[in-house]
Amino acid sequence: MSRLNTIARRLAFGALVSACSFGVFAETSPITDEQKKNAEALIQKALKSDLGYSIVESLTTEIGPRLGGSEAEKRARDWGVVVGERLGFDKVSVEEFTMPFWDRGHLHISLTAPYAQPLYGTALGGAAPSESEINADIVYFRDIHALTAVKDGALKGKIAFVDGDAMVKSQTGAGYGQANQRRRIGWQHAQRGGAEALVVRSVGSDSHRFPHSGMMSSDGDNWADIPVVAISNPDADHLRRLHNLGKPLSLSLHSESKWKGEVNSGNVILDLVGSEKPEEIILIGGHLDSWDLGTGAVDDGAGVAITTAAAALIASLPERPKRTIRVVMFGAEEVGLLGAFAYAKQHEKNLKNHVLATESDFGAQTIWQLVSNVNPEATVLVDEIAKILSPLGIVRGGSDIAGGGPDIIPLAAKGVPTIRLNQNGRDYFDLHHTPDDTLDKIAPDELAQNIAAYAASIYLLADSDVDLKAKQ
Amino acid sequence: MSRLNTIARRLAFGALVSACSFGVFAETSPITDEQKKNAEALIQKALKSDLGYSIVESLTTEIGPRLGGSEAEKRARDWGVVVGERLGFDKVSVEEFTMPFWDRGHLHISLTAPYAQPLYGTALGGAAPSESEINADIVYFRDIHALTAVKDGALKGKIAFVDGDAMVKSQTGAGYGQANQRRRIGWQHAQRGGAEALVVRSVGSDSHRFPHSGMMSSDGDNWADIPVVAISNPDADHLRRLHNLGKPLSLSLHSESKWKGEVNSGNVILDLVGSEKPEEIILIGGHLDSWDLGTGAVDDGAGVAITTAAAALIASLPERPKRTIRVVMFGAEEVGLLGAFAYAKQHEKNLKNHVLATESDFGAQTIWQLVSNVNPEATVLVDEIAKILSPLGIVRGGSDIAGGGPDIIPLAAKGVPTIRLNQNGRDYFDLHHTPDDTLDKIAPDELAQNIAAYAASIYLLADSDVDLKAKQ
Repeated sequence: MSRLNTIARRLAFGALVSACSFGVFAETSPITDEQKKNAEALIQKALKSDLGYSIVESLTTEIGPRLGGSEAEKRARDWGVVVGERLGFDKVSVEEFTMPFWDRGHLHISLTAPYAQPLYGTALGGAAPSESEINADIVYFRDIHALTAVKDGALKGKIAFVDGDAMVKSQTGAGYGQANQRRRIGWQHAQRGGAEALVVRSVGSDSHRFPHSGMMSSDGDNWADIPVVAISNPDADHLRRLHNLGKPLSLSLHSESKWKGEVNSGNVILDLVGSEKPEEIILIGGHLDSWDLGTGAVDDGAGVAITTAAAALIASLPERPKRTIRVVMFGAEEVGLLGAFAYAKQHEKNLKNHVLATESDFGAQTIWQLVSNVNPEATVLVDEIAKILSPLGIVRGGSDIAGGGPDIIPLAAKGVPTIRLNQNGRDYFDLHHTPDDTLDKIAPDELAQNIAAYAASIYLLADSDVDLKAKQ
Repeated sequence: MSRLNTIARRLAFGALVSACSFGVFAETSPITDEQKKNAEALIQKALKSDLGYSIVESLTTEIGPRLGGSEAEKRARDWGVVVGERLGFDKVSVEEFTMPFWDRGHLHISLTAPYAQPLYGTALGGAAPSESEINADIVYFRDIHALTAVKDGALKGKIAFVDGDAMVKSQTGAGYGQANQRRRIGWQHAQRGGAEALVVRSVGSDSHRFPHSGMMSSDGDNWADIPVVAISNPDADHLRRLHNLGKPLSLSLHSESKWKGEVNSGNVILDLVGSEKPEEIILIGGHLDSWDLGTGAVDDGAGVAITTAAAALIASLPERPKRTIRVVMFGAEEVGLLGAFAYAKQHEKNLKNHVLATESDFGAQTIWQLVSNVNPEATVLVDEIAKILSPLGIVRGGSDIAGGGPDIIPLAAKGVPTIRLNQNGRDYFDLHHTPDDTLDKIAPDELAQNIAAYAASIYLLADSDVDLKAKQ
């Protein structure tokens, strides 16, 4: 806990400096002394609180894995309602929507030549089942570029294997988009080539024998007609070494993954109603669904816990901030941002009143940067918020960065201003979409730092008179 | 490679100091200047060589997992013969033996109450199959002590779950023996209680969703009549949290693991025949078999590579050392030291000529300590060897430590002197007996340090006139 003590000392020192500034701060900042005091108190309280950790512990333990559209996701929504009510939110509701359900089913994948060895793989989201066991030789592609160059029909009777490199670990998660091409569009080229199935190297930065799941991209309205499987980085290394030795490789593969028709999902909405401008909404949140392999602790139990706990701390202030703070626990994010699109559609007519939106969906390591995309005249407010967050080790980043998180994409596209509290993502892609995404991967003090940053910044944005949205 | 450069500089400095010592060293040491020079040259050569890494890369890639008694283990013996012949050993042979074969088969284990969630488990060696799917409530035991206190028949119709704690990471691997009790003898008490099956927390220091396999202990000639399954640490944490919430827990479990009759295994023996005392044998080695979940890189491809590469480097000297150096690639170690007992029996009449034995079977991290159990009058030789190894970061440990490695136990019990080059085992029990024991876990420079230490020390012991064995 020495890190937290250091932060607490820095904060106390900051308060002292501020007290000696003879009101200069108050004259130039859009943040009042009272607001600043409240924000700093929220930080102190958040750093000492175990509320966030208890939320993610409860979600991962009492609900477990919760694939979008599953019975478990429904239990998670019920859980979200209870959490919202117990934590004193003013309004708690569930907004349902329908969605197509993809089920992973059982997978068997094994090397059969040059010798028998089970591989650690998992079906990718949207993949088709194999009708029976597929036994076929591998055609090796060094990367997705090599596969995209394949001639139509050239892979008949074969299994295509697309190698690539393990992701480099980075603070920002850079490289995910590029590496992800083999997961996203690989099937289109394998299928065009006539392959029986596609196997890809997992998209992840780890060297453990966990495959990383994830959704493929549809081709218009079409999904793959063939099984598509990701194998772990060490398994892909193994195939590469055998291939480099000139060994012909064969696989046996049987996958039950398939689409199973329309089901219900939903978003859970927890509101702290604003005291002066209740119609203006500051939207924060995470996604409630997870992939089914792990228990969705870092993706995205952490985001749900961070934003819910931050709002609950704000709720414990003597007065509600001026604007409404809305926590959305989005449903069915992993399988295509379905809750996010449903929300944007269901609130289409009221999006003009969404004055800011941001999501926590990048794990539970510490936040290091605050970026924004708000009315240029409101940028000074975000600059001042960043100063208040600086004792937490957070620096101010760009003021014209689009985004706000995956589930915010449909809102940002409609002109809703965003901020993002960027987390250190160095270890994120070790765990992302694997069985290893479990509670033990979350450090309570890092989670608390996140909640402190959210509580302070969201309070200040909600209690501000500054117009965050450019006039249109 | 900066670590290796540092080692190389330290060695050069050591040589300079030695050169300034005006022969004092030669007068007091059982090691000649010539021997010392050869040993130091072996160290330098080993640190620059990739021979050891290429051996473990070849074994794990070209053979893969190789369970004791399996067809894969037979391929590994054929591989060992080819390796021995290519590396210029004077005699290469295989000594076969028979053994009972235990096959893991398929396992399904899933939480069914309070909700459905697949668990990551694996059968323990020697466990019986379930006749059909077992669906039963869990009786929770905090640790093995709680289970040993269970009353006869008290677990009828139930599945016993024995929790415990994840192992603490340590340099020496301390804590393994104690933690391992639940794996070793848990079944005897679960079966006495009348349980349908036993589930135990894996014995390991990691927090990944890999179960750790391993052999149970037989009770006299009897093995378990029930399925016994180890689950990963995060899965065990999950069950513990649910239990602590007061939730009744149920499992569904189906295991195909079973004994399948007698099969062949064998030890591969590679000899460098001594130039003056060929009948005196210095035995080194590792075990060729692995558990079937990983590819047995650290357990014990590394040990095979370290000792084979060290002997091959010694073979590249202009002359053979005085004594015979024998590399044994033991078969069927994991399933009960079967190769080790077979060797001791097959060489029963010649054990008096085994003047020293040691095995590398604790991974591939750097060696930090040299311990021994030799004729007290020979201890000074080991002390002097330790001085030559000190630039590698190796210190001298106790001179009355029994052992020499798992496969050396039957030899040590018959009075064969031993040394052990103790490796840093800090990460060993993260990987031990899991699917994650793969080549990527071995750092080539750490492996090279091991080979340097073995090459120098084994050369010096083999070329020495010092009697290592106390007169009996």
